Amino acid sequence: MTDKKAILVIGAGDATGGAIARRFAREGYIACVTRRSADKLQPLLAQIRADGGEAHGFGSDARKEDEMVDLVARIERDIAPIEVAVFNIGANVRFPITETTARVYTKVWEMGCFAGFLMGRECAKVMLPRGRGTILFTGATASLRGREGFSAFAGAKAALRALAQSMARELWPRGIHVAHPVIDGAIDTEFIRSNFPERYALKDQQGILDPDSIAETYWQIHQQPRNAWTHETELRPWLESW
Amino acid sequence: MTDKKAILVIGAGDATGGAIARRFAREGYIACVTRRSADKLQPLLAQIRADGGEAHGFGSDARKEDEMVDLVARIERDIAPIEVAVFNIGANVRFPITETTARVYTKVWEMGCFAGFLMGRECAKVMLPRGRGTILFTGATASLRGREGFSAFAGAKAALRALAQSMARELWPRGIHVAHPVIDGAIDTEFIRSNFPERYALKDQQGILDPDSIAETYWQIHQQPRNAWTHETELRPWLESW
Amino acid sequence: MTDKKAILVIGAGDATGGAIARRFAREGYIACVTRRSADKLQPLLAQIRADGGEAHGFGSDARKEDEMVDLVARIERDIAPIEVAVFNIGANVRFPITETTARVYTKVWEMGCFAGFLMGRECAKVMLPRGRGTILFTGATASLRGREGFSAFAGAKAALRALAQSMARELWPRGIHVAHPVIDGAIDTEFIRSNFPERYALKDQQGILDPDSIAETYWQIHQQPRNAWTHETELRPWLESW
Amino acid sequence: MTDKKAILVIGAGDATGGAIARRFAREGYIACVTRRSADKLQPLLAQIRADGGEAHGFGSDARKEDEMVDLVARIERDIAPIEVAVFNIGANVRFPITETTARVYTKVWEMGCFAGFLMGRECAKVMLPRGRGTILFTGATASLRGREGFSAFAGAKAALRALAQSMARELWPRGIHVAHPVIDGAIDTEFIRSNFPERYALKDQQGILDPDSIAETYWQIHQQPRNAWTHETELRPWLESW
Repeated sequence: MTDKKAILVIGAGDATGGAIARRFAREGYIACVTRRSADKLQPLLAQIRADGGEAHGFGSDARKEDEMVDLVARIERDIAPIEVAVFNIGANVRFPITETTARVYTKVWEMGCFAGFLMGRECAKVMLPRGRGTILFTGATASLRGREGFSAFAGAKAALRALAQSMARELWPRGIHVAHPVIDGAIDTEFIRSNFPERYALKDQQGILDPDSIAETYWQIHQQPRNAWTHETELRPWLESW
Repeated sequence: MTDKKAILVIGAGDATGGAIARRFAREGYIACVTRRSADKLQPLLAQIRADGGEAHGFGSDARKEDEMVDLVARIERDIAPIEVAVFNIGANVRFPITETTARVYTKVWEMGCFAGFLMGRECAKVMLPRGRGTILFTGATASLRGREGFSAFAGAKAALRALAQSMARELWPRGIHVAHPVIDGAIDTEFIRSNFPERYALKDQQGILDPDSIAETYWQIHQQPRNAWTHETELRPWLESW
Repeated sequence: MTDKKAILVIGAGDATGGAIARRFAREGYIACVTRRSADKLQPLLAQIRADGGEAHGFGSDARKEDEMVDLVARIERDIAPIEVAVFNIGANVRFPITETTARVYTKVWEMGCFAGFLMGRECAKVMLPRGRGTILFTGATASLRGREGFSAFAGAKAALRALAQSMARELWPRGIHVAHPVIDGAIDTEFIRSNFPERYALKDQQGILDPDSIAETYWQIHQQPRNAWTHETELRPWLESW
Repeated sequence: MTDKKAILVIGAGDATGGAIARRFAREGYIACVTRRSADKLQPLLAQIRADGGEAHGFGSDARKEDEMVDLVARIERDIAPIEVAVFNIGANVRFPITETTARVYTKVWEMGCFAGFLMGRECAKVMLPRGRGTILFTGATASLRGREGFSAFAGAKAALRALAQSMARELWPRGIHVAHPVIDGAIDTEFIRSNFPERYALKDQQGILDPDSIAETYWQIHQQPRNAWTHETELRPWLESW
């Protein structure tokens, strides 16, 4: 088992998480992917396996400390050392401040930030003794600034960014590459297709982000030698206004 | 009661919250101050009253939605319209990421951010029909960037800043001045005196922030006419390195 | 002459520079104001004098090193020590990159940045031995980010901001308060009235910045005690989108 | 000549510019490299040719408009279309503000920013009709903030960054990828070896940036498909404090 290595992708429900898992699996990483419901992971697992890769799916509520602790321990014990961990849960909701319930505000933070903390901490624990590993937190436009209607979402993303920065400053000198790519634009997903058809129509001109392009950047960041690491970078379509 | 107006200060336990309450009370605002334990508010209340001001103390857990809802309703009903609301709870802890418990991480966010959301939302609700009011969220160095050991604290402060930005963009055009002063340095408090004596020794040269100076800036922000509002500003001692 | 003190305003041609000069003159500062053509300063000088203040006008090309050196020396020798210096020259032009001539690009930098360097350096020289003084550089939206058509203007403003930051970090610990207020919105000027009439129409609702409001903030920054100095702050109308 | 393409590197005098030229030459790009003195380019040209690449050296003062205009025209006419342009001139000097001469301040801006404007504009002119091309401006720590002693250098770098942002917002939607990688740390150069030997000693632990690592990132940015372009990214060694 010694030269096997795993990539853990928390939130592989959407296009991006799946593309990242596939990209690393293609390079020989064992893809360990999670989402709330394990059933929905089947197509992704099948795809990776059809491409000759190894993949394991886990139904897991990333907001639950014991589930995260257990998940990381299980992969390390039964599958392979986690060489790369990717936190990819979004929680993009939009409400006026006066209509943002405490429940929504809390849930968005739990999904978009607290779960990232749990993943980051548990993976740091297993990576530190090895003095190596990559931890990637997916950022969004809202990571950088608040906007009307985004009190909850921007709060979660800003906190996740602060986590990524704090962990990077703490863990880089101990060999762990923590990075925070900011995806600043619409991604080619079912969500955009259904909810923002005008935006989606830009796909023909490459006006929305292809998950495979995002995955390529994640792979490149992981490949960087220690003398030149990226913490924050940004990706957006050429037609995006920013 | 019609021309009375109240200032609500959530977290008047430390020097800053108290100084802000006194500053506004001196201008005729009825100071409504809270901290976890009402007893500890007595010296502040006595001081304001001795200066000829009106003050009310409330023991309140700002993280509890029903307590916040009740507090705002009670002040509006029994005391005066809330013209100014200040969120001033810090939660400055420092732990390596691997030693940050889920309980600490959550609690710091609840105190430093979620309570601010509750205050902001409840005050926005009562201010919006009046088309006026000022909401101030106190920021810190950690609001702007993460640092080793500050995963929890920087996360809470960054999320609070995202809340302030989101609320400002939403509420400014409806007449409510939301601002986020960043206090970037040690404040003259008991906490600094006990824990950072070398830092505290700079007091003789004005090397640490005087709470009254901070309060003055809060007052000035509140006084700004609508044509020139400040959202973010920063205060630090002249000897601070940044 | 010992307790007299002067404020130097470079670029008092527009509404903002004039309002700042008047605000400080009202507090007893001798206003020393400059613009390219001394003649055009007469109304401002007359206004300050009518309000009981003292004012001196100087026709001066702020981009010329010898003129700036001479100006500062002359005020210090003949009028009063410069306690406050304000750099307020804008150079707001807009051209596509391919139509931006080297002459325009250079001139915008000379006016918007190099002249600020000359003022800042010369005033630092006379303030340092006294261990006191305030130097204010006026920023704009373009100080913070580039935009289509703003290669020249954003370049000058960004460089001016870098100057302000560098000088602040160097001079604060030696007693000189360097600050950079960012004016993020249209100001009530003849330029806006003529060129952006729709914008100007917002004046009735306080939708554009009143130069007196800006001047008030400059005055407050100058009044701050050393324990709580502001370096960067921002001012914009409540109706501004940002 | 139709499928040949050139990369223009302005400022190939140091390790980074040379490494970038070599990296692209390895992929078939004709390296057109410049520095003040053409003679000093010989080793780089020899190296590229020895690796099987094509390279042309130009002695050119990048601050002279006519020289830049001529250079770009000549490459386009005689060699190949410029597909990639890299601006890589630094001008890292450090002086207290009061000892910064107007000559130094101006020269640093001319080298570090104005020359970049000339390159950017001339290359945009030839790239726009083709609707494609990549323009890379090399940033540094000082691009993001001023520091004691860095009034001149930070001013030039901040202005260059504003240029890159302005050009990106204007040219991306017309097919030209403008990017600004920030190199935040010491690079393995003769300059660091001589002047900062303690820093240089970190090389054994990969504690300083390898020019080839930087070149790799430039190559990757150029390879990005239009749906996911990076504007700003950052590179620093794992041991760097930031």
